[in-house]
This record gives sequence, structure tokens and C-alpha cells, in this order.
Amino acid sequence: MNENKKRCAIGIDFGGTFVKMARVAEDGAIGARASFATTDLRGVEGWLDEVERHAGALVADVPADMEWGGVGVGVPGFVDYTKGFVHELANVPGWQGVPLADLLGQRLGQIVRVDNDVNAMAVGESTYGAGQAYQHAVFITLGTGVGGALMINNRLYRGAYSMAGELGHVSIDRDGVTSPMGKGCVERYVGNRRIVERALQEIDAGRASSILERVGGKRDAVTPKDICEAAEAGDALALEIFDFTADCLATMMASVAYVLQPQAFIIGGGVAGAGPILFDPLRHHLDERLSPHFAKRLVIKHARLGTDAGVIGAAALTFLE
Amino acid sequence: MNENKKRCAIGIDFGGTFVKMARVAEDGAIGARASFATTDLRGVEGWLDEVERHAGALVADVPADMEWGGVGVGVPGFVDYTKGFVHELANVPGWQGVPLADLLGQRLGQIVRVDNDVNAMAVGESTYGAGQAYQHAVFITLGTGVGGALMINNRLYRGAYSMAGELGHVSIDRDGVTSPMGKGCVERYVGNRRIVERALQEIDAGRASSILERVGGKRDAVTPKDICEAAEAGDALALEIFDFTADCLATMMASVAYVLQPQAFIIGGGVAGAGPILFDPLRHHLDERLSPHFAKRLVIKHARLGTDAGVIGAAALTFLE
Repeated sequence: MNENKKRCAIGIDFGGTFVKMARVAEDGAIGARASFATTDLRGVEGWLDEVERHAGALVADVPADMEWGGVGVGVPGFVDYTKGFVHELANVPGWQGVPLADLLGQRLGQIVRVDNDVNAMAVGESTYGAGQAYQHAVFITLGTGVGGALMINNRLYRGAYSMAGELGHVSIDRDGVTSPMGKGCVERYVGNRRIVERALQEIDAGRASSILERVGGKRDAVTPKDICEAAEAGDALALEIFDFTADCLATMMASVAYVLQPQAFIIGGGVAGAGPILFDPLRHHLDERLSPHFAKRLVIKHARLGTDAGVIGAAALTFLE
Repeated sequence: MNENKKRCAIGIDFGGTFVKMARVAEDGAIGARASFATTDLRGVEGWLDEVERHAGALVADVPADMEWGGVGVGVPGFVDYTKGFVHELANVPGWQGVPLADLLGQRLGQIVRVDNDVNAMAVGESTYGAGQAYQHAVFITLGTGVGGALMINNRLYRGAYSMAGELGHVSIDRDGVTSPMGKGCVERYVGNRRIVERALQEIDAGRASSILERVGGKRDAVTPKDICEAAEAGDALALEIFDFTADCLATMMASVAYVLQPQAFIIGGGVAGAGPILFDPLRHHLDERLSPHFAKRLVIKHARLGTDAGVIGAAALTFLE
């Protein structure tokens, strides 16, 4: 490695809808971007073709003072990080048992690191974002489900078999909703769709609310964002929905805090965009559910890298060690 | 250190009822023992006097091929391990803000390590007992409350502020029993007294059971051991009580497994003495509550050092690093 040159890497954020790519410098700055729709591709080979094509463009105009650090990929599913092997992606057909680091490495002639998307986000936030000050932090993403990642002694902790941090499956009710993952898993109460369903159920039961008016009466168009905006305007039902969401999350987070005693929880993902509408009741309920020994020094922070967390974090995987 | 000599240390297991001490060799063998009642002592000074007196006897007959490794203490409460400082002991009056490692070190002229009792047990089981094969293990003690300790990458993990592993406070019910530690903390359902209370409530409500006959009808004399023996004899209520206890523990353990994905849970303490009456339903409920990715390789083991775990583990603290 030339000490005078800055390293850069390609970060690939493999989402269920889009694949986003970027050239990211070691200081976290994004130099160039590319993206394509996930749904148009023909399986793993189609994905590799597209990534190879775009990577060529991202590499072509790399500045002279940069040298390559490699390629990092964050994927939405179970991964063996040490082997760069994708066990299974929940929402992308045809991705089972794929040795992605090897396949992509052969195409690009680079070292490729593959991790799950929440781990990639955690590495990004720890290196460049809201997690920088903490050696012990727990990362949470709020979206369709609830994702998690653990930073322990300043390193990502993957557990015994590379799958630790599945915070969405933590139970908040022994007799709760049954799913293949267990009973009462927190993501069955606070996932995107659950939040919307809960609001619609209450409206169907006769509760007054401005939520439906905001989307022209179209039930199918309601998103957590609409409910958040209603809450910001003082809508009682919308506020109640977010209070419930916060309390469910606080129950899970209190359990995690008692187990790991992290310095901070860093929370990102779509629903976290609700800001104080979510974070204020979250702090309140978490304090209520923790002994002061655990509550008083515990920080809750909003993730800072936003929609770029995926590509920056994936690139940052290549800068580790 | 003389390479030809075996190290030995004094291990002190500071319990709410008795203080047990032992001279323990580096291979885990106990050379000599002492003990005294906790309740007779006049505060911290009285405790130090007694420990100093017994330590003298334990040191007096040390074999010629041994050299001292120091003194380790396991205490029932909140400890700052790096400072050897006792914040607070839940069940021993007068122990708040005690710099125990310094005080005892001055008395004995030895390096003193102080940790909470479950961490000491975990170090003992990891070094000499049921935890030897695992780099990633979670230790659980079942008694008046539920204690926990985490072994991560072959080292005890204490969290950001030395209090991690409080598994007894993990919530199994968002709307559950309220206590200063939160709502639905698992130890509110499976602590010694809760198990007995639950049995007596059912009997009071008219359930047929042999439990009371076993203790000559004396309600106050019932212990979890009596309920276990009734279960072994096929008593339906007793079996139900242990099934419920196992399911509550499995709910907490499933959450912990999803967070940390350990290789093993090592379970000790009085209630764990129930053996298959507890462990069989525990395995069943845990498998029921975990995805096969998490359940299939997960080991549940009974702790192996029994009532000596405390002194051996405390001594082992001094052999670390």
C-alpha cells in the first residue's frame, strides 16, 4: 500500500428493490454513484453482470491520488461473513447458497467482503456516523422488520455462527403472536405494515382520526410517514400508535440493555425518520423499564448517514483491519 | 513467577448466608477450605477480620511446590471489576461503595480481584467445568433470582459499565409484573419463591397435588426441591409448574440467543438441580421458540462445579490474563 494515497472502495447496498453502488473514500466521502432495479435481473448471473458493468464505470474515473481498497457488499439476509457466503435472502428469489465473495471477486479482480445489510450500516455509522464515540453500541433498523447489529469492544460481534443481532426476533410477550421465529417477536408489532394495520383497525372500529383524509381516503396508500405527520398535527390515534410502537421497542431495548449494557442504541431505517414522534416516547418508556443504573448513562441516537448508510457501510467493510 | 511451581489462589464466595473460602490450585483442585456465617459479622470491618483470620490458616499449610496467585472474591451484587469496587450488595446491609480489592489487598498483602458471583461462576465453569469447550457461552444461575454472565470470544464480557448479563431482568411480558427493574422481568416468574407461590396458589384454588403431603402439610416448608420430587413422582401440578418455569426461561433464552447467538447456555444454581424435570421442557420450549438456524447447534448444559463453583470461580479470576 502506498502511504501517500488515500484508499477508496466500492460499496454495494443490495436492497430488495434497488441495488445501490458507490465509490467511497476512506474518509467516508462518496465519489461516484450507480444504481439499478433488483427486480429486472436474471438471478445471480444477471446481478453479477450488472454490478460488473457499473463497477467498471465507477473505477474508470478514480482520481490519481486514490488506490483501491476492494469491494464491500451489504445484503438483506443470512451471510457467513468469514466465507463471504450468502445462505439465503428473504425477499430476493434465487439467492440461496451463493459464494458471493468468490464469484464477484473473480469478476472484478478485487477482494470482496460480504455482510448483512444491518452489519454494514453499523460499520458505517461506527466509522463515520452516529456511532463514532462508542466502543459498545447496539444498532437497530426499523423498516419492514427490525434489524440489529452489535458493536462490542469496537468490533462488530457476529456470534458463534455469524447470525447474532437478530433484535427483531426478541420476544416482548411470552404468549404473543406466533411466527416461525417464535412467539411475541417485537417485529410482529412494530414493522411498517403492523403500524399501518394497527391504525386502520382502530379507524375501522370507529376511532376518529385524520390519517385517512391525508391519503385521500385510500387505505392502501397509508404509510408510517402519513401516521407520523398526523401525529405531528396532534392526531390522538396517530400519537397513540407511535406511543405503542415506542413501548414495544423499549421493551426489547430494555432486555438488550440488561443483557449487554451498551453505551448507546443507534437507530436508523424508515420508521426512525419519525424523529421526536418516536424518540420522545421511546426514551420515556425505556427509562420506565430500566433500573437507573442502566438508564442514566444510556444514549439513544438517530443514525446519521441516512439512505447512504448502506453503500458507505459496505465500503467501510473493506477498510476494517 | 517461578515456572516450575504451580500457582494457587484463595477463592472467596461471598454469599448472603455464608462466606466460603478455599485454597484452589491452578488446575482447579481444592486444597483446603474454610467458612463462616455472613449474618454474625459487624459490617465490612468484621468481614475483613474474619477473612484475614481464615486466609492465614489457608496460607499456613500451602505445599512447597505452590506459589501464590492472589485472592479472588465473588460477591452477590453490583461490582466495578476494574477497580475492585463494590457498588451495592442487594441482601447484605452495610455494603455500599466499598473499595474491597484495596481494603482486602492491604490486609493480606496480595493482589485481590473482585467480581460479581455469577461472573466468578462463569469463569470457573469456563476454565474447569461445563463451559470449557465454548468460546461463546451464556451462563445462567437459578436461585432467589436469575443471574447471568456472558462469555464472548473466550472472555467474560462486562458491558460498558461492568453490569452486563443481568438476564433476570429480561422482559418476557410487556404488560407483566411491575418491579423497580421493569415490567415482566423473567425472575419475577421463576425465582425460588415464585415457583413455590405458584404451586401454593394452585393448591389453594383446589388443585389436587401431593406437594403439601411431602412436607407434612407445612406450607412454609415447601421448596422447589419438594415440587421437583413431586414432579418426579408424576404429580400433575408439579409437572405443570416446572413446564411453566421452563417456558418462561425459554422465552428469555430465545431472546438472548437471537441477540448473541452463543454456542451454549450453561445453567447452574439450586433450581437447576431439578435436572431433566427442568431441562427436558426447557429444550422443548426453546426449540419451539427459535428458528432452526438458531436452535439446531445450540447446546444447553448443566453447570458442573456445583456448590464449589463459587470458590473455584473466584480463585480462577486471579489466573486470568
